[in-house]
Amino acid sequence: MEKKIYLDNAATTKTRPEVVEAMLPYFSQLYGNPSSVYEFASQNKKALDEARSIIAGAIGAESSEVYFTASGTEADNWALIATAEAYEGKGKHIITSKIEHHAVLHTCEYLQKKRGYEVTYIDVDENGIVKLDQLEKAIRPTTILISIMFANNEIGTIQPIKEIGAIAKKHNILFHTDAVQAFGQLDINVEDLGIDMMSASAHKLNGPKGIGFLYIKKGIKIRSFIHGGAQERGRRAGTENVPNVVGFGKAVEIAMATMEERTKKEIQLRDYLIKRVLAEVPYTRLNGHRTMRLPNNANFSFQFIEGESLLIMLDMSNICASSGSACTSGSLDPSHVLLAIGLPHEIAHGSLRLTLSAENTFEEIDYTVEKIKEIVDKLRMMSPLYEDFVRRR
Amino acid sequence: MEKKIYLDNAATTKTRPEVVEAMLPYFSQLYGNPSSVYEFASQNKKALDEARSIIAGAIGAESSEVYFTASGTEADNWALIATAEAYEGKGKHIITSKIEHHAVLHTCEYLQKKRGYEVTYIDVDENGIVKLDQLEKAIRPTTILISIMFANNEIGTIQPIKEIGAIAKKHNILFHTDAVQAFGQLDINVEDLGIDMMSASAHKLNGPKGIGFLYIKKGIKIRSFIHGGAQERGRRAGTENVPNVVGFGKAVEIAMATMEERTKKEIQLRDYLIKRVLAEVPYTRLNGHRTMRLPNNANFSFQFIEGESLLIMLDMSNICASSGSACTSGSLDPSHVLLAIGLPHEIAHGSLRLTLSAENTFEEIDYTVEKIKEIVDKLRMMSPLYEDFVRRR
Ligand SMILES: Cc1ncc(COP(=O)(O)O)c(C=O)c1O
Ligand SMILES: Cc1ncc(COP(=O)(O)O)c(C=O)c1O
Repeated sequence: MEKKIYLDNAATTKTRPEVVEAMLPYFSQLYGNPSSVYEFASQNKKALDEARSIIAGAIGAESSEVYFTASGTEADNWALIATAEAYEGKGKHIITSKIEHHAVLHTCEYLQKKRGYEVTYIDVDENGIVKLDQLEKAIRPTTILISIMFANNEIGTIQPIKEIGAIAKKHNILFHTDAVQAFGQLDINVEDLGIDMMSASAHKLNGPKGIGFLYIKKGIKIRSFIHGGAQERGRRAGTENVPNVVGFGKAVEIAMATMEERTKKEIQLRDYLIKRVLAEVPYTRLNGHRTMRLPNNANFSFQFIEGESLLIMLDMSNICASSGSACTSGSLDPSHVLLAIGLPHEIAHGSLRLTLSAENTFEEIDYTVEKIKEIVDKLRMMSPLYEDFVRRR
Repeated sequence: MEKKIYLDNAATTKTRPEVVEAMLPYFSQLYGNPSSVYEFASQNKKALDEARSIIAGAIGAESSEVYFTASGTEADNWALIATAEAYEGKGKHIITSKIEHHAVLHTCEYLQKKRGYEVTYIDVDENGIVKLDQLEKAIRPTTILISIMFANNEIGTIQPIKEIGAIAKKHNILFHTDAVQAFGQLDINVEDLGIDMMSASAHKLNGPKGIGFLYIKKGIKIRSFIHGGAQERGRRAGTENVPNVVGFGKAVEIAMATMEERTKKEIQLRDYLIKRVLAEVPYTRLNGHRTMRLPNNANFSFQFIEGESLLIMLDMSNICASSGSACTSGSLDPSHVLLAIGLPHEIAHGSLRLTLSAENTFEEIDYTVEKIKEIVDKLRMMSPLYEDFVRRR
C-alpha cells in the first residue's frame, strides 16, 4: 500500500478542510483585535461569540461558562493550579488517578513539590477503571478538588464520570475532568454528569492545533492562570486566537452533527480490528475495558517484543501508530497507564496503540492486521525472550 | 473614503498572505503530531526546527534558547512566575516599571497578592523613559528579576535596554524584557543588549494570532510554567501549534528582510502625521519620546475631549484607531501609561493612538488628519470644559 494509513488519531487529527475554510477569512481580511472598539473588530467579537455558543451547546453549558485556552494542557493546568490557589483556605489536598495525562500528573507534581499541596493518586482496576471505593475513602476535610479524566488517551477506558460527579457533590468538592479524548467522541452533558470543570482540545476532533477550552461552571471562584488583559471575561489574558476559535467552533459543529454515524463506523472498524488481532496474533492482550472504551481506541500488548521496534517497522509499511501517549514516545520508560492496570514492565513495553477515524477503511484495517502479524512474527524470531519461552514450553 | 483605514497595528496586524500560505499545508496534509516517531510526523518536527532557527537568528540567539508559547502574554507570565519560583531561594523581590503592559503588571500583582513577592514599580520621565538611577537604587540583595519592556505599546517610547541590561548584569540579576511591540520593528540582539529573557508575539508583526515565544538564555534555571508533556525540550507542555509556528517563522523572515525599508516608510508617514496634527490641531500634545519611539507609533492628547467619542467618530469615517492598549479599551479608567508620564486625568482621557503600517499611504494620513481636525472641532464645540476654557481666556 503506497498511501499512508493514519492510525494515531488520539495523538492528533487532520484538520477538516471545512474547518480551515471557516478560519481563512480571519487571517488577512477580518484580522481586527476583538478587544478593539471599532466596527471592523466587532465582526471578530461576533465570530468568537458564535464559536463559544456552539461549543457551550455541545456540552449543555452556557456560553459564559466556556473559556478558550491554547491547549488541553493549558486547560488542565488552569483547572488544577487556579483551584488550588482559590480554595487553599479550605485545604491543600487534591485527588486524582494514576492514569491521568501528564498535563494533570505533572501539574499535580508541581503543586506537591513547589506549592505544598498533597495529592492522592487513586488506583485503577485491570481494565483501567478508577476504584470508586478508594476514591471516596481518600476524601478528607481538606480535599478541594477531584480531577479524573473522562476517557484515557492510551487504553481508551471511559470512567464512570456520573458516579464520580455524584461522590464529589456529596462531599461538596469540586470535580474537574480532562475530556480531551472524550469530547467529540462521547455524549457529554456537564449538568447531568455533575462536572464542575472540564478540559478539551480542538486538535483531537479535527480542529486546529493550539486551541482548547476550560468549562468552568457558573459560580466557581477560580480566577486566572494567565494574567494580563481582560480577555475571556477577565479570566484568561492574551489576544484571542480568532481563526483558531472559529475553527474550533466549526470542528465541534461537525463533530456533533456526525457523532452518531461517525462513532458507529469507528466502533465497527475497532471491533473488527480487535477481533482479528486477538484471534490471529498469539500471546496478545487487549488493554483497557472491552466495552467501556472510546469508539476509536485499540491498545494491544504483544508479548516478547518491543513496541518501539514494532512502531518503526509499521512506519516502514506506511502505518502511523503509537506505543503510548505521543508525548512520551521516544522515552524508554514504560507507560504509567499500562503499569497502573497491572502489566509487568516487559509486557507494557510491547504495546501498540491504534486510534482510528471514520475515514479509515476495512481494507486499511486488513492491511494493518497482516502487517502486524508479519512484524510481530519477525520480531519474536529475533527476541531472546521468545526463544527462552519457546525453549521452556 | 470608502475603504477602511487601519491605524491600529499595535493592537494587531493583518496576517500576511505569504504567511497564511506557508501555514496551509500543516492543517490538512502535514497534520502529524511532532512528538510522534513515524516519518510522517518528522516533517512537522523539521518545520518547527526551521521556524525556530529563523527566529533565533533574528535576535542573535541559538535555536535551543527559543521556546514557543501561545502569546506574548503567556511568555510574560512564564518569565515572571517561573523566575520567581526558581530563584525564591535568593529572594522575593522583583523590579519593573509603571508603564508595562498588563501581562507584566497583572502578573506582578498576582505574585504580590498570592505568592508573597515584593515588587518595585519604577517611575518614568515625561517622555516615558524609565528612570535608571531610581532603577539602580531599587536593587536589593533579594532582587531576583528586572523586567522592563523594550518599547511601550501605547506611547511607543523605546527604553535604554542596553543600559538596563548592564545594570542587571552588574548586580547579577536576571533581566527580562517584553519585546512584543519592538520585535520586528527594531534591531534586537539579545547578546549585545544583555537580555536574559525576552517575550514576543507573532500577531504584532503580520504573523498569526495565538503564537509567541520566550527567549531564555542558556543556563537560566527556570522551568515550566505550563506542565505536562515533554514538548519544547520539556519546558512548555502542550501539542505544538505547528501551523502557527510555521507562520511565525515566515512572518519573522519577511519582517527581517523588509525591516529597513518598511520602518523607513513608517517613520516618514509617522513624522508627517505628527507634524500635521501638532501644527493644525490646537491644544494638542504628542505623548512619548519624540525620537526614541517606535517607527509606527503616534500618540496624541487633545485637550477638552473624550478619546472614546473621538474613536467612535473616526470609526464612522472608516478609520480604525485606539485610545490606549486594546485590552483596556472599553474601560473608563485613564491609561496607566499616560498617568505615569504625568498627564492629568482629563488630558489622559482625550488621547488617541495611531499605529501605522508600511502599507498605509500619505493619502490615508491626509484624510485621517482632516477627519481628526473636523471631529476634534466638533467635540470641543460640545465640550463644557472647552466652553469654560474659552470663556476664561
Ligand atoms: C507590550 C505588550 N506586551 C504584551 C502583549 C500581549 O501580547 P499577546 O497579545 O500576544 O498576548 C502586548 C499586546 O497586546 C503588548 O503590546
Ligand atoms: C487526555 C489528554 N489530556 C490532555 C492532553 C493535552 O492536550 P493538548 O495537546 O491540547 O495540550 C491530551 C493530548 O495529548 C490528552 O490525550
